[in-house]
Amino acid sequence: MIAIQDTYPFDVAHCFGCGALNEHGHQIKTVLDGMLTVTEFTPLPYHIAVPGFMYGGLIASLIDCHSTGSAAIYKMVADGKEIGSEEAPRFVTAHLEVDFRKPTPLGPVRLVGTLIEIKGRKVVVDTDFSAGESVTATGSAVLVEMPESMVGEGPTSAR
Amino acid sequence: MIAIQDTYPFDVAHCFGCGALNEHGHQIKTVLDGMLTVTEFTPLPYHIAVPGFMYGGLIASLIDCHSTGSAAIYKMVADGKEIGSEEAPRFVTAHLEVDFRKPTPLGPVRLVGTLIEIKGRKVVVDTDFSAGESVTATGSAVLVEMPESMVGEGPTSAR
Repeated sequence: MIAIQDTYPFDVAHCFGCGALNEHGHQIKTVLDGMLTVTEFTPLPYHIAVPGFMYGGLIASLIDCHSTGSAAIYKMVADGKEIGSEEAPRFVTAHLEVDFRKPTPLGPVRLVGTLIEIKGRKVVVDTDFSAGESVTATGSAVLVEMPESMVGEGPTSAR
Repeated sequence: MIAIQDTYPFDVAHCFGCGALNEHGHQIKTVLDGMLTVTEFTPLPYHIAVPGFMYGGLIASLIDCHSTGSAAIYKMVADGKEIGSEEAPRFVTAHLEVDFRKPTPLGPVRLVGTLIEIKGRKVVVDTDFSAGESVTATGSAVLVEMPESMVGEGPTSAR
């Protein structure tokens, strides 16, 4: 199973959350499973809100990057393309919502995405965020294909 | 000006985003300015989405922790207490929304919070997230006072 993030073009593969080329980052990997998208992640010991529980900002971050990856997957599926057959399209988040339903114990988590809508350059993805058998957070994200202005030349980029 | 995070009780001051005791974390500091709350933050070079632009997950994380700090500030103000006069109440996020309005250049950012509602254990805070003169993202968060079940004994805590 090929993770979508491993097929991002090299010049847009530096995201702290999901870029395979960001050596300091989380490097999450998202795969297609039937019509769902799946990301698994294990936090570090210091990724805490209070001792024993995962930091909410990380939960939001994981849902965010899982959603951009899911959007790329669903766009390829909608276009009849196999994951890994070519470089993936890159999406950015326009709107993110997270409901923190119960505290998330610090440990491995699993994100499962569902396609809600795909229309032109816009994709909507919902996410169930689970620790063990328990869904501790849910997310909804609106993703759009990355504008050309973000690629290659950042405003403060040294490139 | 005393940052609210420097007045959190020691047993709940480990948050990766805002805990003064998390040596690996962001350790953000939020202060009251009139009736607004203000957090300033400078990202690290690898906190990127693509080269030159800040990672959206960090934007969401900063808004999240800025909002929990703001909720503690507004609760103390509502209770007629001066910031720093006693340990601050600790809030957790129930619901977080972020609108990413334009790409955020990598560099210093400023978050300004506004109290929308305070009622019992619940506080609603809106945030303007700016890079330079430009508001690049806006956030809205619903915070609630931390439940006793999260304090002292995490389900996987080694304490």
